[in-house]
Amino acid sequence: MAASATAYQKLLSVGTKIIAVGRNYAAHAKELGNAVPKEPVLFLKPTSSYLENGGKIEVPEPLEALDHEVELAVVIGRRGRDVPEATAMDYVGGYALALDMTAREIQSTAKFLTYLILCQKSAGLPWSVAKGQDTFTPISSILPTSMLPDPHNVELWLKVDGEIRQKGSTSDMIFKIPFLISHISSIFTLLEGDVILTGTPQGVGPVKIGQKIDAGITGLLDVHFDVERRHRVRH
Amino acid sequence: MAASATAYQKLLSVGTKIIAVGRNYAAHAKELGNAVPKEPVLFLKPTSSYLENGGKIEVPEPLEALDHEVELAVVIGRRGRDVPEATAMDYVGGYALALDMTAREIQSTAKFLTYLILCQKSAGLPWSVAKGQDTFTPISSILPTSMLPDPHNVELWLKVDGEIRQKGSTSDMIFKIPFLISHISSIFTLLEGDVILTGTPQGVGPVKIGQKIDAGITGLLDVHFDVERRHRVRH
Ligand SMILES: [Mg+2]
Ligand SMILES: [Mg+2]
Ligand SMILES: [Mg+2]
Repeated sequence: MAASATAYQKLLSVGTKIIAVGRNYAAHAKELGNAVPKEPVLFLKPTSSYLENGGKIEVPEPLEALDHEVELAVVIGRRGRDVPEATAMDYVGGYALALDMTAREIQSTAKFLTYLILCQKSAGLPWSVAKGQDTFTPISSILPTSMLPDPHNVELWLKVDGEIRQKGSTSDMIFKIPFLISHISSIFTLLEGDVILTGTPQGVGPVKIGQKIDAGITGLLDVHFDVERRHRVRH
Repeated sequence: MAASATAYQKLLSVGTKIIAVGRNYAAHAKELGNAVPKEPVLFLKPTSSYLENGGKIEVPEPLEALDHEVELAVVIGRRGRDVPEATAMDYVGGYALALDMTAREIQSTAKFLTYLILCQKSAGLPWSVAKGQDTFTPISSILPTSMLPDPHNVELWLKVDGEIRQKGSTSDMIFKIPFLISHISSIFTLLEGDVILTGTPQGVGPVKIGQKIDAGITGLLDVHFDVERRHRVRH
């Protein structure tokens, strides 16, 4: 049973994890030069990376840009473990639009270092630092499930300084939401307020310091974020 | 200022992330065939992976064993961002003993796949699935900071079926606690109840279904966990 209409707005404040799905749109996997995966590629982002609509996305030194990935966020409404696909949609408490901001230079450095080391036999480096920093998960308010009767048929879009960069339909997801909830809940117990980021359509690219992002779910909501240099807190 | 004596026991229930440091003891990095890192290697585990003292560590199909890594856990007592090393210890709310259980076969498969793909140019796979599953972070009760006046001079040990497997001193950490808190808080805001797993000394190895783990901080506490086959929840 989905969360009640009065409960869904506070879900993000009780959540303890963000599970992100990589390469869930074939065209995006191809543009990064990656194989289309047979299983979802999962990684974790911390809830400390959330940024509310209207906030400032912070680019850490020495980077000048981050990559934008616009994604449909599935907000979990109640605890689930080993959830069957057939009942998976009952665990959805709402939907939101999220950006999975990525320090591609860091990810690529990790990739490059990994390349150097791996070809002498060693381990890959984790993605937490490239994708988990504060402000790297800008997110909209939560829409009740009743507003997305078919979440696999909505259009996501993203503009940088008014120019369209990403536009795609959730109908192109490789792994659909019931499968993702079932699969992920067999690995991690899903808790109320946890969020699944379902992957990004093609058109990923850099957004620089000083630029502005608008993004939305066509006909349902839109969000706005400015991109700025991060300044360290002085103590 | 550290959390009050009455507050520290509930810290784990309010925490929202576990930041784990890989390869923080030179001897362990060497035994895995990894270079000693110049910066801490960080990854995230979800709080849904905690297991209380006395619980059952669950080995998912098709694995027969997990690797044990005994670690000193630093429990954060209050919110911190860009914390200077000089005051970092004020952010510690307590300590615990934790195990960073690792499905090395999955990690190695990821490594192997990565190897195959990478040498044709592609991305490393994330560690969340190998290290973040339910019961993969067994943890003791929390000790107040007053019981570890020198956290860089305690002995960690781990036995499997009564046989010693790991024994090491936290004096051998490559990156010390104040540096870790400062560095990590420049990437992710640390929140009350968050946990830093500070890495494992040498002696990492497999523990099989049916075996028992005892582990401890010499003279301070010990914990016990049984290792069992995971059974999926029936709906
Ligand atoms: Mg993404
Ligand atoms: Mg988390
Ligand atoms: Mg470890």
